[in-house]
Amino acid sequence: MSQPSHKALVPFVSVANMMRLVHHVGLEAMLKDLAAYIEDDFRRWELFDKTPRVASHSEVGVIELMPTSDGEAYGFKYVNGHPKNTAEGLQTVTAFGLLADVYTGYPILLTEMTLLTALRTAATSAMAAKYLAPKGSSTMAMIGNGAQSEFQSLAMKAIVGIDTVRLYDRDPAATAKCAANLAGTGLTVIRCASPEEAIEGADILTTCTADKQCATILSDNMVGAGVHINAIGGDCPGKTELAPGILERSEVFVEYPAQTRIEGEIQQMPEDFAVTELWQVITGTKPGRRDARQITLFDGVGFAIEDFSALRYVRDRVLDTPYHQDLDLLADPDDPRDLFGMLTRAAV
Amino acid sequence: MSQPSHKALVPFVSVANMMRLVHHVGLEAMLKDLAAYIEDDFRRWELFDKTPRVASHSEVGVIELMPTSDGEAYGFKYVNGHPKNTAEGLQTVTAFGLLADVYTGYPILLTEMTLLTALRTAATSAMAAKYLAPKGSSTMAMIGNGAQSEFQSLAMKAIVGIDTVRLYDRDPAATAKCAANLAGTGLTVIRCASPEEAIEGADILTTCTADKQCATILSDNMVGAGVHINAIGGDCPGKTELAPGILERSEVFVEYPAQTRIEGEIQQMPEDFAVTELWQVITGTKPGRRDARQITLFDGVGFAIEDFSALRYVRDRVLDTPYHQDLDLLADPDDPRDLFGMLTRAAV
Repeated sequence: MSQPSHKALVPFVSVANMMRLVHHVGLEAMLKDLAAYIEDDFRRWELFDKTPRVASHSEVGVIELMPTSDGEAYGFKYVNGHPKNTAEGLQTVTAFGLLADVYTGYPILLTEMTLLTALRTAATSAMAAKYLAPKGSSTMAMIGNGAQSEFQSLAMKAIVGIDTVRLYDRDPAATAKCAANLAGTGLTVIRCASPEEAIEGADILTTCTADKQCATILSDNMVGAGVHINAIGGDCPGKTELAPGILERSEVFVEYPAQTRIEGEIQQMPEDFAVTELWQVITGTKPGRRDARQITLFDGVGFAIEDFSALRYVRDRVLDTPYHQDLDLLADPDDPRDLFGMLTRAAV
Repeated sequence: MSQPSHKALVPFVSVANMMRLVHHVGLEAMLKDLAAYIEDDFRRWELFDKTPRVASHSEVGVIELMPTSDGEAYGFKYVNGHPKNTAEGLQTVTAFGLLADVYTGYPILLTEMTLLTALRTAATSAMAAKYLAPKGSSTMAMIGNGAQSEFQSLAMKAIVGIDTVRLYDRDPAATAKCAANLAGTGLTVIRCASPEEAIEGADILTTCTADKQCATILSDNMVGAGVHINAIGGDCPGKTELAPGILERSEVFVEYPAQTRIEGEIQQMPEDFAVTELWQVITGTKPGRRDARQITLFDGVGFAIEDFSALRYVRDRVLDTPYHQDLDLLADPDDPRDLFGMLTRAAV
């Protein structure tokens, strides 16, 4: 059987190779690179094809496809959300993604995206905080010490320049895990016994808890003037973390209002609750933080364009490394009209 | 680095392995098997989640995601359509697909679908003809001798029992290619110089031409009583093959009316033009062919459920063969909350 042509082969990045790529580039360097790619794409926000997620719901979870395109490349992510999986020893969220060439329609990258999504989520939060957090922010409260907590901490270190994280989780084992993972990264890590203790002296308050219920991780009286809140955990209908009073006192920044009003913290607020789109701050069309007393709030839910940026980065970065393999994913007969001939010749 | 667990590995069927699977099962046997899987899924049509295709259009083509679910499994196909590709030595259409477990959200099969789509398209046509074509049909006119023509011919032989195909294409080289490919398959192959000659004495008229324009491959006066028309080539807006007069004289059967009214031959007809859904014929709720004089017409455009059936079949059939490889597509930390720990331990 003849070998498939170059264009019929799609570079694939496995989980093992993604981990090798992260170590090859360096985790903080990669978070910075990803933030730069995401920032570039937010800058050209208006030219993207912004389709809502295509969701297939069942009683136990959801499977979603998140496509987008900038007119030159097309990307989509497959992602599931199954909260009951953890109890069965499986991941709540797994993901993979694909990048294709709009001109030919041919896929040009297939990659794991469970790790990559964790990286881009942290990079997006830190990129937003770079524009919104108080100048000279040095301390972050990290409330919720699950799978995303270390990535958030290191992205804020690499991109915003924080030097201290104050950890809290209602499960002390999660805090112990996070503290152990952050040992030796250069961050001062302080374990706290309550959310109130965690936010003491913090410039940035990151909430990233996992309950699918309207919880109140931060109550109104806990949040003082001048902080930046990075609210990541509320990311689907019925899942919020902040008291509505905090939203009323904050300037709220979002990725894509149509999606955030359904999935984000602002699902608690009226339909016409005022928000600012983050891309407008980045392009300079709208102001970010106005003064030192203001409370800024990034209501992050994760948007397809961030995945697209991450796919673009991996495609640009991985091809010159050994951390990919070629998949024979596309049929490529010598004569495009002769698929059958390709099949029969393969029997020889 | 520890090995990923069983559930983190996704079986992948490459193009080369799909060809090996076809030869292992036998092409006609596989077409029969696929038709049976498709028929089973048409029988339980009502329980499927029927989402429209999610299309991303550009000036030169389209990239589509076609998801569906039966509540237990979830499948989607990625497919592009770029008519200009052929002139550049690339495929007009390439495709791959994925099957996932609805209960866990974990993917359970990734496969090429360029070949598999060719097979399921032919199997669907033949399955429809089994219900609609005149009893004892022995001869098919095959108008358009491109990539789908041999698969159509062999599916009609395997599933309907035809013994003769009469080939016509405006490009004699395409007809020569099709005739050469069908030599030795047991079909009597007759090359014809015109569409009129091709349809002489044919019980089934299959049209499968590729122009993206409203062409008239069959004019009204060419089609006599009692035949079954299998119209496959008209499958997107602006692409049709039949004169409207033929549609008026026929009983038209479709996969999914909402999609066929946009993409199929019936895009030429008024919105309320009467059609019968094929699944209702298969379940016995609606009649198929009523009498020997009637013209039946299957206006096939290809629907996500047929891809789902094909994915189910490959998943059931391939795992006991060597014709797949395992991809490390899903991150699978020992502790689901410790993605970061998995990453750092991978550096050792």
